Amino acid sequence: MAMTSLHDLFVHHMKDMYYAEKKLTKALPKMAQKAGDQRLRSAFEEHLKQTEEHVKRLEQVFQQIGEKASSSTCEAIDGIVKEGEELMSEAKQGEAMDAGLIAAAQAAEHYEIARYGTLASWAKMLDMPEAEKILHKTLEEEKKTDEKLSKLAMEQVNRKAA
Amino acid sequence: MAMTSLHDLFVHHMKDMYYAEKKLTKALPKMAQKAGDQRLRSAFEEHLKQTEEHVKRLEQVFQQIGEKASSSTCEAIDGIVKEGEELMSEAKQGEAMDAGLIAAAQAAEHYEIARYGTLASWAKMLDMPEAEKILHKTLEEEKKTDEKLSKLAMEQVNRKAA
Repeated sequence: MAMTSLHDLFVHHMKDMYYAEKKLTKALPKMAQKAGDQRLRSAFEEHLKQTEEHVKRLEQVFQQIGEKASSSTCEAIDGIVKEGEELMSEAKQGEAMDAGLIAAAQAAEHYEIARYGTLASWAKMLDMPEAEKILHKTLEEEKKTDEKLSKLAMEQVNRKAA
Repeated sequence: MAMTSLHDLFVHHMKDMYYAEKKLTKALPKMAQKAGDQRLRSAFEEHLKQTEEHVKRLEQVFQQIGEKASSSTCEAIDGIVKEGEELMSEAKQGEAMDAGLIAAAQAAEHYEIARYGTLASWAKMLDMPEAEKILHKTLEEEKKTDEKLSKLAMEQVNRKAA
């Protein structure tokens, strides 16, 4: 795909995020299943619902810009999820697993924070206030999830693992 | 590698970051070369120097914990760098390229922010105050670089690209 304008870049990165969010809807249930800590399991389950909502929001933005919602392989999220899968196969279930699961989830959150930050700022530049608003809402939710995971790690999981 | 304790996880993620930082020392000169905007090129060149320093700091931490500095393939950074390379081959040089380069660099920054945040918090839990201090210093620098890139994007590059 040739990318000659900011609009092209915007569409390209929308497809990348659409792929990423859908991939995460498949990864999160496995992570919830591996989590030993009940609060961590609940956090993953809650974030799965949010992620399903984020997929729908991306579809709304595609509709607003007159593009069919479609995915483009996102090597970054593939790599992040693969690292998480390796962790799940190699870590011992329990405290070490939980600490590793949080680290994996935060890598995914930060990827999304970077991408939604970029998309929201491009939407603003492209004078698409409705798209910007939607993308910004998701961005704020990803940031909150990241903070929640940090808090869980600090309070409980890491302390038990040490 | 079996990961049964938080210490094992710490060493595993240190190797992952050592690979990631070294990979970025190879990616950044290419990004600087593609950047059309002078301030963006300088930002990449400056961050390259910082990244080389981050490699040395990781070596210090390896030494502190009595481990040989070594790399473990980091699929996440491989994916992030691959996406950046695709962008560089597909985007038109100029404003769209610059906006895309910033997005690619911010994806890398956020990956590092997630990982250094995790490593610093694990170092704290493992009662390694010197390692924590070093990792925290790098974390703060990655956050500053991310902010600088956001500012550059907002002020100049995106405006020109729209």
